Amino acid sequence: MRFWGWGEDAFAGEAPAAALAWLTRELGGLGDPAPHVALQDVCVGESALPGALRERFGEILRDDHAARVRHARGKSYPDLVRQRAGDALDAPDAVLTPRGHDEVRAVLQACVAAGVAVVPFGGGTSVVGGLEPLRGAHAAVISLDLGALDAVELLDERSRLVVAGAGLRVAELEARVRERGLTLGHFPQSFEYVSVGGCAATRSAGQASTGYGRFEELVQGVRLAAPAGDLDLAPRPASAAGPELRRMVVGSEGVLGAITQVALRLRTAPEYERYEGWMFSSFEAGAEALRDVVQSGVAPDVARLSDEAETRSNLGMAGLGSVAGAALRGYVKARRVGGGCLAVVGWDGTEEVVRARRAGTTERLRAGGGAQLGQQFGRAWQRSRFHGPYLRDHVMDHGLFVETLETATTWANLHHLYRVVASALAGHAQIVGCHVSHLYPTGASLYFMFLDRARRGEEIEQWRAAKRAACDAIVAGGGTITHHHAVGVDHVPWMAAEAGDTGLDALRALKAQLDPASVMNPGKLLPAG
Amino acid sequence: MRFWGWGEDAFAGEAPAAALAWLTRELGGLGDPAPHVALQDVCVGESALPGALRERFGEILRDDHAARVRHARGKSYPDLVRQRAGDALDAPDAVLTPRGHDEVRAVLQACVAAGVAVVPFGGGTSVVGGLEPLRGAHAAVISLDLGALDAVELLDERSRLVVAGAGLRVAELEARVRERGLTLGHFPQSFEYVSVGGCAATRSAGQASTGYGRFEELVQGVRLAAPAGDLDLAPRPASAAGPELRRMVVGSEGVLGAITQVALRLRTAPEYERYEGWMFSSFEAGAEALRDVVQSGVAPDVARLSDEAETRSNLGMAGLGSVAGAALRGYVKARRVGGGCLAVVGWDGTEEVVRARRAGTTERLRAGGGAQLGQQFGRAWQRSRFHGPYLRDHVMDHGLFVETLETATTWANLHHLYRVVASALAGHAQIVGCHVSHLYPTGASLYFMFLDRARRGEEIEQWRAAKRAACDAIVAGGGTITHHHAVGVDHVPWMAAEAGDTGLDALRALKAQLDPASVMNPGKLLPAG
Repeated sequence: MRFWGWGEDAFAGEAPAAALAWLTRELGGLGDPAPHVALQDVCVGESALPGALRERFGEILRDDHAARVRHARGKSYPDLVRQRAGDALDAPDAVLTPRGHDEVRAVLQACVAAGVAVVPFGGGTSVVGGLEPLRGAHAAVISLDLGALDAVELLDERSRLVVAGAGLRVAELEARVRERGLTLGHFPQSFEYVSVGGCAATRSAGQASTGYGRFEELVQGVRLAAPAGDLDLAPRPASAAGPELRRMVVGSEGVLGAITQVALRLRTAPEYERYEGWMFSSFEAGAEALRDVVQSGVAPDVARLSDEAETRSNLGMAGLGSVAGAALRGYVKARRVGGGCLAVVGWDGTEEVVRARRAGTTERLRAGGGAQLGQQFGRAWQRSRFHGPYLRDHVMDHGLFVETLETATTWANLHHLYRVVASALAGHAQIVGCHVSHLYPTGASLYFMFLDRARRGEEIEQWRAAKRAACDAIVAGGGTITHHHAVGVDHVPWMAAEAGDTGLDALRALKAQLDPASVMNPGKLLPAG
Repeated sequence: MRFWGWGEDAFAGEAPAAALAWLTRELGGLGDPAPHVALQDVCVGESALPGALRERFGEILRDDHAARVRHARGKSYPDLVRQRAGDALDAPDAVLTPRGHDEVRAVLQACVAAGVAVVPFGGGTSVVGGLEPLRGAHAAVISLDLGALDAVELLDERSRLVVAGAGLRVAELEARVRERGLTLGHFPQSFEYVSVGGCAATRSAGQASTGYGRFEELVQGVRLAAPAGDLDLAPRPASAAGPELRRMVVGSEGVLGAITQVALRLRTAPEYERYEGWMFSSFEAGAEALRDVVQSGVAPDVARLSDEAETRSNLGMAGLGSVAGAALRGYVKARRVGGGCLAVVGWDGTEEVVRARRAGTTERLRAGGGAQLGQQFGRAWQRSRFHGPYLRDHVMDHGLFVETLETATTWANLHHLYRVVASALAGHAQIVGCHVSHLYPTGASLYFMFLDRARRGEEIEQWRAAKRAACDAIVAGGGTITHHHAVGVDHVPWMAAEAGDTGLDALRALKAQLDPASVMNPGKLLPAG
């Protein structure tokens, strides 16, 4: 991973000329070029790691400049702003890479003894500050890189169950189970880098989670190394034995301990996929059609509906010569309308099953006023589905401020929440778009993207003002503070609104029990009590 | 509800002559008749309720003999043995029936102040001792009857969401939402009496949960009155904001507080239902076919497969003249086989959707060697689906010992677990049957029924020995200690094996936070620390 941005140079591609041209027009010009510093020019502080840890774990410890910089943060906009500027003064004092569950436990216990904070590190893709190297009350902090826990421990084809080390990348797991004709079906935008432990720790949802289920639904068992002991929850399809402990571990974001192993539900790999574009006259009309689809039990595996602004910006940035542009022109011509909202819907399965399911969805979408744009649009979406973070790097190179955030609410409240959040963001960014990304019988998610010229030297303040306005609006509007990005540090100020004081106290009691010295991931998830 | 058994006299029917005749043959005779005592002959102890509670809550308090007897226990076999014998010496000292959430809170706080234990009471249907009036370290105990919290607070048709008071019976809720063309789809055997709060507190699963989802999946929001404060979790389709608090409340069995309100997901009520019988040559063959069905994404809403012994006992007890008997004879004649395993499969929906889904299931069941028996068998099952507990009363009248228990495991482990539990029970009961009752992609449930002549005067010891043997076998065999009956008092000895020491400590920490005086439902769910 590039220390200052997403992914690897080899996959980043060229700066997309059409997108930059469109943004130049929309924003009245780009910002000043904002290149990132070279790796060797990033500033890190002196390592304050206690000698005891260094002596005991020398074999799995790195504290060289590059390792510390690369583990200093995740991939949120403020993370990248600081990395690009070469500011990693707070970098972790060392990176430890244990080779198994027992070594994770040993590291945690040594950190408790030495008074060192621990930030679990999986794929390094957090976009909410989940990897900030905060020290809490401690003098030092280590990054606990779980990358060496990457084994497939068990592949039980009969039970459609895989048990994997927490550090295994989801992409690698997917490749491994595909060899046996199975799929995990979990495709977040971070798919190529995210780890299975990270997905569990953050209650991840992927682009196909409408069909395959959220990560928390895929988790059948989990192993947590906590300072106070191991929580080892064997894979079970279901149980009624008390509150669901695995759902206390899933979503715990490293504050209770480090997830070392996850058991996951698999499905038969699809023989056939069909993805296609649809057009609706308005966001409301499209959302109504999707509501009908999911409540009628004929939801596709992927369903994404852009609002008017996102449709316009996606098409603008893709360029008029693109597949999407051609599809839109065809629609506009056929319908004699001035605009509309694009949707992508997709089904996986056997060809026969996809045909039957698609017939059910299509009938409802048509009844809801949708017009089919064909498969070329869907295929274009599939090809570019993991490219978003690279595009962010390109536009940041050109001095732009770009961020995303997401929420969810009931269908009855969806448009109200959409309007209040969009309106709050409009005060902070020239371009604000939104899409529905996940469908549920009782509601849906809203994913906002916003973009403007960065205020040079005040990027973090600019970001914070927009983020605060949006989150306040989400809470006041009845949404959840996060649908799939997790809490990290960015959403901590709104956790009291989400969980209530009694809920926060319950979570704090859990933490006090499992991590009594409070070394695990300070400052994340829970506001100070 | 009859204080000594299930339901109401008017619905109990006559003792089924065919069943008793078959049991007489199988067991080598019935036991001695074992009638229940009359209500007025049940012994209760002197009420030890502190005067302060009596003065403050006189308006909602009952401590007459009948109320105390009726709230003394649930409906497990040992519960009924004691009630029938007139032993309610440990009956709660009073029954309080608060009229709303705030009054529940006030009662809990008064109980904390007075040092009185609280047993939340919903429909009164626990089969695991969840309503035992245990006092813990306190001198008195009240039954907190939530029956007056029976309002439908909100019916949001657009979001397919209903918010109901915890005391509302599921049957009543179902009737109310059906008026609007919706269904909850939750049909446990206790359907006619169980409350929505009770289903949430115990992680209930119903007969159609393979299709509609377990109760924990239906819960979109929940309100808990805990001694330490309110936990008020607004309905959300999904969230990634930390560990899932609602799953800490769901399954908490009254030990953290009293659930006062539940928000539940609804579906469109089916226009059409089709239930039919199937026959498989063996339990293994039938389970394999069901595994294929659920892993291929073509599971029916209801799927139940009896093993050879349960098939034989169901048919024997139904009588040769019954629909089921006729179906079996038809099968035996057509196939020229000596026996087999019966299954019931059912689909709900529009006629068109049921036809399409049924075609998918049927193809797979046939490929798995199944033979269709037709709808008359399915309809017979539907008619009798809530009759089991009445039948238990009839056979207990005739001096028999009858109990059920359930577990779940992965598909790869299903037959191993089945064999070890059946074998453990065979040492304790002449008749042992089992069925698969719920399907999941990664595994299934196993529901055991066992029956023998009761040892008069030693009924509880007889039950305890069988229960212990089965539960030890479940834990050693890799199953969960309960799939949908909950923990109550009966499964407490196996909770350490289920959750591990660290897991138990985490649950205890939650309890200490929410119920610091430990008044809530002592002795349930958690072993003493």
